[in-house]
Amino acid sequence: MLTLYHHPFSPACRFVRLVLAEYGVRHELVIERPWERRREFLALNPGGFVPVIRENDGPPVVGAGPILEYLDETRGYSQGDRRLMPDHPDARAEMRRLNDWFLHKFEDEVVGHLVHERILKLEIPAKQGGGSPESAVLRAARANLRHHMRYIDYLSVTRKWLSGERLSFADLAAAAELSCADYLGEVPWSETEHAKAWYARMKSRPSFRPLLTEVVRGLPASATYDDLDF
Amino acid sequence: MLTLYHHPFSPACRFVRLVLAEYGVRHELVIERPWERRREFLALNPGGFVPVIRENDGPPVVGAGPILEYLDETRGYSQGDRRLMPDHPDARAEMRRLNDWFLHKFEDEVVGHLVHERILKLEIPAKQGGGSPESAVLRAARANLRHHMRYIDYLSVTRKWLSGERLSFADLAAAAELSCADYLGEVPWSETEHAKAWYARMKSRPSFRPLLTEVVRGLPASATYDDLDF
Repeated sequence: MLTLYHHPFSPACRFVRLVLAEYGVRHELVIERPWERRREFLALNPGGFVPVIRENDGPPVVGAGPILEYLDETRGYSQGDRRLMPDHPDARAEMRRLNDWFLHKFEDEVVGHLVHERILKLEIPAKQGGGSPESAVLRAARANLRHHMRYIDYLSVTRKWLSGERLSFADLAAAAELSCADYLGEVPWSETEHAKAWYARMKSRPSFRPLLTEVVRGLPASATYDDLDF
Repeated sequence: MLTLYHHPFSPACRFVRLVLAEYGVRHELVIERPWERRREFLALNPGGFVPVIRENDGPPVVGAGPILEYLDETRGYSQGDRRLMPDHPDARAEMRRLNDWFLHKFEDEVVGHLVHERILKLEIPAKQGGGSPESAVLRAARANLRHHMRYIDYLSVTRKWLSGERLSFADLAAAAELSCADYLGEVPWSETEHAKAWYARMKSRPSFRPLLTEVVRGLPASATYDDLDF
């Protein structure tokens, strides 16, 4: 059995959940609150962040990038047409560029701030930095979001899927990030119709369903969040 | 011919140069100053950062992580014992975890700040943020450096190479980052003898030589920088 240590509103963890569902990997979920710095978890990942996966008593695989490569190395070949890793090294490079773009740049400039300020700070104790959101941080993240949405819109209009002709890890990475921003009602969907059409396709995949049932206590999802025809 | 767009004191670019040298890939170097936001370069990488590689008129491969996977996919198999990618998925995961640790965490918490404040700000025009280093930033980076050196020391004493039994991409990533800090005389070598012994092995590799001849105009290298018996 594979175990995923995750937080339900960590975009990188949602990305791994989507991959596990797309590849049909049976797994169990353990919720981890990284700010608690649980000793047993730090032994798995001295960096203290999620996601981490572990197969039975095997060594931990740490971080979304290493996890995607690991899952593809161990399960990708048997997926046939559903493999999320492109075949050619050039196409793989483009997929990995976009994967890094979404899971690092989009996360660091936009979604990480929105989630931290509006969701995690509800859960984190005040003495560890929890509390009210910082409006200056939210303002900056919202301004950056418009630039990122235009880029996703551009990719959606010029390609069938974000990194090329086939669904790839990069689509799951972008959709995982966007799903957290969408829960919070932060995405100006009406400004980017191609991005919206691409995201509607992603949201209607069976792999997405479990994410759409997650809720933050005391903070209901936006009206668009679990609506497949938003 | 392969072209690498780089900056001589970008640790991620140094990492790619080490990989190219270890794999014996003929290449040419183009110096890029990312803060100039050169139009032709932004067409290769809309993110605007180095490193980027390109083979002949092929598509660009952007960022150290995608570049290492690309170089291994296209050249790794013919390297035999000198391959920098471990064979087993578990060992690859550990290599990739450490590679991300050095190129992202060590970079973001330590070396990126040291290089930006002490080297790049000499070159960047004042109106784009160049000028004198911020002492508070340097102080924080130096405090973080001690933690990272202890971690490298721990890895050096418990393993033959940082990610396991064989030299891997992770050793090159750590050494590339450290080489920039060492140029600046920032590394407290006497506190971590195992890390020092590991770095001495790295520094004496032929792939390292070209890096040791790089100089910053107006800022000579530290006494230890090009000394193989530092």
